[in-house]
Amino acid sequence: MRLRLRNIFLVYFVVSLVGLFCALRELGEDPFHPPDLFKAPPIPPMPPPDPFHPLYSPPDSFHPPRPPPDPFQPPQPHFSPPRPVQKAELVRLSQTLLHVPALHWVVVEDAAAPSALVGGVLAASGVSFTHLSAETPPDLRGRPGDPSWLFPRGAEQRNRALRWLRDTRGRDEPGVVYFADDDNTYSLRLFEEMRSTRGVSVWPVGLVGGLRLERPLVSQGRVVGFHTGWRPERPFPLDMAGFAVGLRLLLAHPRARFDPRAERGFLESSFLGGLVTPAQLEPRADNCTQVLVWHTRTEKPKLRQEEQLQRQGRGSDPNIEV
Amino acid sequence: MRLRLRNIFLVYFVVSLVGLFCALRELGEDPFHPPDLFKAPPIPPMPPPDPFHPLYSPPDSFHPPRPPPDPFQPPQPHFSPPRPVQKAELVRLSQTLLHVPALHWVVVEDAAAPSALVGGVLAASGVSFTHLSAETPPDLRGRPGDPSWLFPRGAEQRNRALRWLRDTRGRDEPGVVYFADDDNTYSLRLFEEMRSTRGVSVWPVGLVGGLRLERPLVSQGRVVGFHTGWRPERPFPLDMAGFAVGLRLLLAHPRARFDPRAERGFLESSFLGGLVTPAQLEPRADNCTQVLVWHTRTEKPKLRQEEQLQRQGRGSDPNIEV
Repeated sequence: MRLRLRNIFLVYFVVSLVGLFCALRELGEDPFHPPDLFKAPPIPPMPPPDPFHPLYSPPDSFHPPRPPPDPFQPPQPHFSPPRPVQKAELVRLSQTLLHVPALHWVVVEDAAAPSALVGGVLAASGVSFTHLSAETPPDLRGRPGDPSWLFPRGAEQRNRALRWLRDTRGRDEPGVVYFADDDNTYSLRLFEEMRSTRGVSVWPVGLVGGLRLERPLVSQGRVVGFHTGWRPERPFPLDMAGFAVGLRLLLAHPRARFDPRAERGFLESSFLGGLVTPAQLEPRADNCTQVLVWHTRTEKPKLRQEEQLQRQGRGSDPNIEV
Repeated sequence: MRLRLRNIFLVYFVVSLVGLFCALRELGEDPFHPPDLFKAPPIPPMPPPDPFHPLYSPPDSFHPPRPPPDPFQPPQPHFSPPRPVQKAELVRLSQTLLHVPALHWVVVEDAAAPSALVGGVLAASGVSFTHLSAETPPDLRGRPGDPSWLFPRGAEQRNRALRWLRDTRGRDEPGVVYFADDDNTYSLRLFEEMRSTRGVSVWPVGLVGGLRLERPLVSQGRVVGFHTGWRPERPFPLDMAGFAVGLRLLLAHPRARFDPRAERGFLESSFLGGLVTPAQLEPRADNCTQVLVWHTRTEKPKLRQEEQLQRQGRGSDPNIEV
């Protein structure tokens, strides 16, 4: 019983992160405050992509066409057992993003190809979007029985989004990049706060790391430390939801990426360390005294009755998408 | 250890339902389809409220003024240990409701008085709202150690909202009443579907009752049964999220209310049984074949690091609202 429960939790953690990315394209940047790129070094030419690299995935178009369904195959049930809340979470997040002006949503699924379910939600959402996929390689997934934190989650997917930005955005294009998770809660004010990001902007995150809130500590407009409950010696003890990056800074550092083998809690540092120093962080949200994003998590629903009814041939209609 | 864990879960269940009510006031009802009130009996005069009744709470104004803070009292920390996700959930739900035209949100807290935290979220939301409170009486709360389902949750709060509707709405006013929970996920299409409700309209609910979905079964435009995993003999085997009521029907039945002593799973039936018969239900969402609402639940966050830091005097700043 104990072992079974642990396995169920593991399956949940491994599949719970779709890897959602939100490239906020700021159209009306203030001409009186041009982006300060921290005297970024001259941009080296991009190496050609290596198709044998574990992170390589072939380039795809803005809205990749889906192959027509095979008429000789029975219709695929829309039931995706390991992640039944996926559609609900995307619907809810899309309603938040639909309020935000000049936003482009880059959604990267942890899958071999973009799914019809996610594609349908995005198409119906009214939000401008790009739908990609990047599958976590088996050697970075952890084996059954491994602790869920052995490998960071969402690294491949975020790197895929970074590659999309580098492939499609012009070097001088204004914009702000934020890495959003599908079950966090975002105040609409957060998006206004991050709009003025030049390098890397930061703010508090609620209900994260076992704390009521984590936050950068600010003195005289500068980040001078961090309130965190865990390994404060990390270079950037920040949650993924607690920072945004100026697009020009990102494009000026073509090698900055998330390390899929980063130690627990060091995924954010592996990326930010290639862009700025902690002293260069730009505090937002009233000098980091306002919580505008919450690290909420959606419970995995228990579907015991469904399994019972399915054994009796009376399960919920598999043709109805949930 | 076992006992402690069980107590923590009990506290969570008891306080997790704020009781949120959403009175959808449809302003542009179709004049060619006047509400069909199922030949409702003539409306008996309302008995005067009984202040000794356990459900009685004194009438309050639309936006009750709050007393000024006592300057001799230290500032109250905004930390509400049993329900840390309350603000996040309200913020997220308010973003959904903000998309819905002609909606009025009636929020009823399970508390002696409306709280400043909830009032602040509502005032900042941009949604038209009324903020009320109704405390669950101690004898209907269950004692520590009682199972969480011994008494239905949210009955007092929904009844308070019904009383508000009866106190403030004119008998012929058009409108649709929907009982929303703060952690469910609502498609925007759901609100369009319920807008044409005359008596009681119904639709599927996803991820509820241990099933992928529960739904009314429809034949030739009529509800002829229910797909449910539990006690299908209930008069209305429907979740609270699966129906809406026409305001005129509600006002024509001044005694219809939720029974706070209803048996487990019978709370919806205790209310709907006073309004319609199952055969009168009006199917929506493409004859109940579309899932437009999901019974999602937000995990209770673990705040172990917070407790550790607080013991060392280094807890998160209590003046920052989360």
